[in-house]
Amino acid sequence: MIDRPHRLEQLIARIGPADERARRAAQQGFDAKTKPRGSLGRLEQIGCRMAAIGGSVPEHLRPAVVVAAADHGVAAEGVSAYPQEVTAQMLANFAAGGAAINVLARQADARLVVVDVGVAVLFEHELVRSVRIGAGTANLTDGPAMTGEQALRALLAGAELAEQLAADGVNAVALGEMGIANTTAASTLAAALLTADPGEVCGRGTGLDDAGVTHKIEVVRRALSRTSVGSHDPVQVLAAFGGFEIAFLAGVALGCAAARVAIVLDGFISSAAALVAAKLAPHTVEAMIAAHLSPEPGHRLILSTLGLEPLLDLRLRLGEGTGAALALPLLASSIALLNEMATFDRANVTDAGR
Amino acid sequence: MIDRPHRLEQLIARIGPADERARRAAQQGFDAKTKPRGSLGRLEQIGCRMAAIGGSVPEHLRPAVVVAAADHGVAAEGVSAYPQEVTAQMLANFAAGGAAINVLARQADARLVVVDVGVAVLFEHELVRSVRIGAGTANLTDGPAMTGEQALRALLAGAELAEQLAADGVNAVALGEMGIANTTAASTLAAALLTADPGEVCGRGTGLDDAGVTHKIEVVRRALSRTSVGSHDPVQVLAAFGGFEIAFLAGVALGCAAARVAIVLDGFISSAAALVAAKLAPHTVEAMIAAHLSPEPGHRLILSTLGLEPLLDLRLRLGEGTGAALALPLLASSIALLNEMATFDRANVTDAGR
Repeated sequence: MIDRPHRLEQLIARIGPADERARRAAQQGFDAKTKPRGSLGRLEQIGCRMAAIGGSVPEHLRPAVVVAAADHGVAAEGVSAYPQEVTAQMLANFAAGGAAINVLARQADARLVVVDVGVAVLFEHELVRSVRIGAGTANLTDGPAMTGEQALRALLAGAELAEQLAADGVNAVALGEMGIANTTAASTLAAALLTADPGEVCGRGTGLDDAGVTHKIEVVRRALSRTSVGSHDPVQVLAAFGGFEIAFLAGVALGCAAARVAIVLDGFISSAAALVAAKLAPHTVEAMIAAHLSPEPGHRLILSTLGLEPLLDLRLRLGEGTGAALALPLLASSIALLNEMATFDRANVTDAGR
Repeated sequence: MIDRPHRLEQLIARIGPADERARRAAQQGFDAKTKPRGSLGRLEQIGCRMAAIGGSVPEHLRPAVVVAAADHGVAAEGVSAYPQEVTAQMLANFAAGGAAINVLARQADARLVVVDVGVAVLFEHELVRSVRIGAGTANLTDGPAMTGEQALRALLAGAELAEQLAADGVNAVALGEMGIANTTAASTLAAALLTADPGEVCGRGTGLDDAGVTHKIEVVRRALSRTSVGSHDPVQVLAAFGGFEIAFLAGVALGCAAARVAIVLDGFISSAAALVAAKLAPHTVEAMIAAHLSPEPGHRLILSTLGLEPLLDLRLRLGEGTGAALALPLLASSIALLNEMATFDRANVTDAGR
């Protein structure tokens, strides 16, 4: 077990359960509105969940999207359809505003925060926050992807960003990522933490063919067999299989939960980060909202372990936080309905369900 | 067969196929963007469909929500959990801005058009457009819900509204409705047009219990058996089982298709209206986008007959166009991605999928 610094223990200690009183008050709010009880379905659940996370119904959704980018030594095993250079190229694309997540964050009126947590090639830009833990992780099939100290540093840096966003009034943070080969890191991490077979968690990533998936499964199996890491210490598993961006996003999740800010999961990789956070502090799950279902088979497994049901199923397989950004208008709408709809009493509508 | 006036024949004649060249051009647009091919899943389909409907990729989504309200004589059979007076009360609520659809239309930046197509009690308000065909339909178990002339009048009035919206620059119209007992009208209509058993199409509406559903099935069966109306003349079936608001929305769908404006279906009732439009002019389907899946069993049946896959499944059962309004941001995002994302070439990102 890796020694946890005092700051991490303090952070974990601050993460408490959701506010059930606020959730009930929000449900009573929905029940008084001019509509049949429960007829807004999952929008009611989401509005109530936002209230339970924050302690009351917020006036507005104030969302941010955090896109964490990093490189992965395991890319050398040929597990991605894309070459490693694409991570840095996409970082430049985020900075220039041309990627899908730039467009979708604008559409959702969300603040976009791009973080370099360890891309192989240095790319400096005023719009990219630099929290570089290293120039990409080591190859997880040869040894640990990162040191325990690096894992802890990335976790705490993520938590710090979350606390800053919370201090700025942000009440929902969408988790996005970019990193060539990071579905392999996430698959290994998920297999280890869920004690699942690599075949159950590995998928096509951004576009592998059948042979590519078979190879990826073999790589994950090799990584798991080289180490005796169990699932007992999440920080050790995180360090073993890594992803600087995954460690950072796990920290963002912890920081959000501590600050009572909603965590909006994107696809498989951000959910693997959420799983690490949940293993460290189980109440973190109560602050999570699953935005969409990825076609990666490991995603469904993680979400069912966390007890989360995704809002969207649009067959997205891009990452970057795109699925999470697309769900933000649903969150905003659930809050607006609670704040703006008329009640049966005020609108003089007969309430047959009373 | 009911004689069709020249205006209806002209309208139907104007409804042509989708623009496959525009669809292919939009797909090529998506393929050049900085993301793996197809990785935006259904958002790419929707963007391409919007292009195929309008003939090119629009600059922006310019949406409207049409909420058509009317009363139903079949309410006398006790098929709804709510009394008939609620239709007029909700019309007042729409006018005052307090209903769910008011909130969701605002959230989607959509123009809201509320239409009284025949509510039992007259409610006049500057924000309610009056196209009253009658003070509610007749009880469909006793005889035709409306005359053929009324059905045609409602259809043409709906088409006229669609053409006005198109002239104002609207390029997507969400179909919403309000009318106590209208799931019974829609169920009868769907059973007749799909030659389905009433048990396959009837659901809980806004909140019936098991006994209520059984009773509703019996009412629909009685209505179907009193008449020899086949499924050969959609206008005659429409008149027999009606819904002034359903006839009006079928007309809105026809008018949208003729004006090359996207038709965004809401739940079961708006989809029954869409089915009538599709029976009159099959190419209308190519202008439709299914926003959400209703728990009403008849809805899945209609959508599969039309070959449409819903974008959302949020267990909504409210109507008013709420599910359609919630899907509008997805349409807006698909268009924004096509217009605003960088291409591989421009962003200097390596395109492994080329």
